[in-house]
Amino acid sequence: MSPIRVCVLQLPALLRRDSGVALPSSRAASSSAVVDPLAVLQRKQQQMQRVREALVGAVTALRQRGEKDSSAFTTTFEPETFSAAAVPTSYKAILDALLASPAFSAAEGVRAAPFELLVLPEIWNAPYHNSCFGAYAEHIPDVPLSPSPQDPEEAGAGVGATEGGGEAALTASPSFAFMRDLAKRLRVYVVGGSIVERSATKKRPLEGRDGGEAEEKVALYNTCCVFDCDGAFIAKHRKMHLFDISILKSDDPNGKGIIFRESDTLSSGNSLTSFSLPSFGNVGVGICYDLRFSEMALALTQQRQCKLLCYPGAFNQTTGPPHWSLLLRGRALDNQVYVVGCSPSAPAVSGEGEYPAYGHSIVVSPYGDVLAELDGAPGAIFASIEKGKVDLFRKQVPTSVQKRFGEVYTQVQEIAAEGLNGAAREGTPGA
Amino acid sequence: MSPIRVCVLQLPALLRRDSGVALPSSRAASSSAVVDPLAVLQRKQQQMQRVREALVGAVTALRQRGEKDSSAFTTTFEPETFSAAAVPTSYKAILDALLASPAFSAAEGVRAAPFELLVLPEIWNAPYHNSCFGAYAEHIPDVPLSPSPQDPEEAGAGVGATEGGGEAALTASPSFAFMRDLAKRLRVYVVGGSIVERSATKKRPLEGRDGGEAEEKVALYNTCCVFDCDGAFIAKHRKMHLFDISILKSDDPNGKGIIFRESDTLSSGNSLTSFSLPSFGNVGVGICYDLRFSEMALALTQQRQCKLLCYPGAFNQTTGPPHWSLLLRGRALDNQVYVVGCSPSAPAVSGEGEYPAYGHSIVVSPYGDVLAELDGAPGAIFASIEKGKVDLFRKQVPTSVQKRFGEVYTQVQEIAAEGLNGAAREGTPGA
Repeated sequence: MSPIRVCVLQLPALLRRDSGVALPSSRAASSSAVVDPLAVLQRKQQQMQRVREALVGAVTALRQRGEKDSSAFTTTFEPETFSAAAVPTSYKAILDALLASPAFSAAEGVRAAPFELLVLPEIWNAPYHNSCFGAYAEHIPDVPLSPSPQDPEEAGAGVGATEGGGEAALTASPSFAFMRDLAKRLRVYVVGGSIVERSATKKRPLEGRDGGEAEEKVALYNTCCVFDCDGAFIAKHRKMHLFDISILKSDDPNGKGIIFRESDTLSSGNSLTSFSLPSFGNVGVGICYDLRFSEMALALTQQRQCKLLCYPGAFNQTTGPPHWSLLLRGRALDNQVYVVGCSPSAPAVSGEGEYPAYGHSIVVSPYGDVLAELDGAPGAIFASIEKGKVDLFRKQVPTSVQKRFGEVYTQVQEIAAEGLNGAAREGTPGA
Repeated sequence: MSPIRVCVLQLPALLRRDSGVALPSSRAASSSAVVDPLAVLQRKQQQMQRVREALVGAVTALRQRGEKDSSAFTTTFEPETFSAAAVPTSYKAILDALLASPAFSAAEGVRAAPFELLVLPEIWNAPYHNSCFGAYAEHIPDVPLSPSPQDPEEAGAGVGATEGGGEAALTASPSFAFMRDLAKRLRVYVVGGSIVERSATKKRPLEGRDGGEAEEKVALYNTCCVFDCDGAFIAKHRKMHLFDISILKSDDPNGKGIIFRESDTLSSGNSLTSFSLPSFGNVGVGICYDLRFSEMALALTQQRQCKLLCYPGAFNQTTGPPHWSLLLRGRALDNQVYVVGCSPSAPAVSGEGEYPAYGHSIVVSPYGDVLAELDGAPGAIFASIEKGKVDLFRKQVPTSVQKRFGEVYTQVQEIAAEGLNGAAREGTPGA
């Protein structure tokens, strides 16, 4: 079985200062934040453009290296890579330009891209800040219970149908549509990092209330969308463990510290997520803080038989240096799986309210060794992953079959959610 | 709450070539191995003497450094440290000599040793080889259900009562008695690495058989004994996951490879083990290969509320370099606990049948950083551990209370063994 090539993009994150969200001076006034919807759309298109530039840069580097070379490598981008002054005003124009670039037009054979799996970072289309999550959120459909790869146009139906700068696109899902069409046009699987998902449920009208209109209840999620190479929407992971931490500067050896509470704005997902990658096996998805929970990886590998875990994440400069690589390598070795961690790059400009992402996207082998790792700068990783290497290690050191579940303690077992639909299974916003 | 000082001893292992076990040329003939019982006892006394020499060396280093210095440090021993030509012929003489040494006689106050917890390596009293396990095995009593620290003489009653070179001591448990008395005389808790345990159960006599004698069924375990500072035997861990691996030389980047099957001779334990360390909290015990199982550490920390995990281990020179430190650091960070790994040193002489231990004993903080680590040479680590640091990290990054058990998946929960006594709960020997 031939290897699968994975392309991991470490993109610059959007900064809050240019977010299009006029920020209230105090947290208590957050409900009065003023949003410029056109600015939000333009900023999302700027990020799509960055995906395009990063893909062109990465594939150019791969071709220079020799496409048949299966060793893992990294390529970093010069600052001007992402300095395109004119951002096309539709995601379709960005995709057209991508496929017209020399790097991609040189592709031979039936595949449009010289890799099979593309991984994007956490919250790649918005500033990572509670004050921006609502304004940048998109509606994401439910994953069809029976994905129909024969009819990829149906996947994601009802979203992204409009595009450009119009009002319709603002309430639709341009980032979702972009990822879907990227998968379809490049003919690659896409683990779409994450974007903020807006999920609205109608409540019954209150009796006797004027007009009797249904009340809308909105929840926001940090959500990863997965598309197959036909553009079918095949998996959706809502971050299960929300990032609520409080490390004071005085407690941090580097004096940076980090205090963040995702649960101020986000709700948590309540289910594991995996999908099948042809010629390789099952792939599990977790988002950032999910990585800290060994039991989640155990369930994904034991219950869902995953052989690769993808963690889009945005660890920060306080917890990133001591923990990011250690956690990812630990997940790989404990579960004898490949692990991909994909982060935004560290911001070139820091400042009050800007999230200090750590970068250091990484690909780890099932033996726990780092195949390739970026530093803080924008860049990409190409790495080959092989089902055979997972199988060999599991045969050499057969921990996967030597477990003592059922004898000494119980299995970490997924709780069946029969009779519950997706929406009803999700949690409520945090305090 | 003041810190606890841990002393971790990395002792030279015994080599098989001098084991007192005349080795059959083929594995099939292993049942005909000839054992020299006096040689076995003398070899065990040689190891007790090494414990003594290592303790004297370690405490001398601590006192030179300044006993109040709470930073972690390592000290390594010159080869001649362990070259004592004359080994005392009883463990009591070794303990007397230990307490008479200048390092210990200089101790002030009521404590005999300037540390609270001593950790020994896996199989510290025998060559690590299937052909030797039976000959070096000792009987180990059951842990009293209600430990009686007021009456420490009762703990381990019936074993180690005789000593010296006589036959009685051979069938008794000189290593068990040595550890017990070491704990009592030094007034420290001892996590006694591991020794091979012989557990004999009488079967009912076969009907009509001559003499009607009960048939004895013997099982061997890789067992860690824990003693409190009164010498009470407070916990017994039988290695739960047997070391059965097969890495061919051709598959090992370093060309060493390792094939070992503990299950050829040993049986596995079937229960978790923890004990309470005053002024600190609960301590969990795993042995070597147990370390590879994240679910075991999860159960120890979630069910048993452990804040320190001790892993006596003997990783080898194939899996040690890539995995030993990574696994120990991963267990610490995932569970926000201190972790101690205590190994025999790497053998100065290598050769056919000699187990190539990796060494690299280590103490890891709950943040996953290495407080102190030895290389392959014999040595000791002193490290301070503080309950407060565990509590602080769990407050800063509260993963320990953010778990999704009961919502997304089931807890890793200990299976209650009600109605089963210790012996009946243990497994049968492997194939």
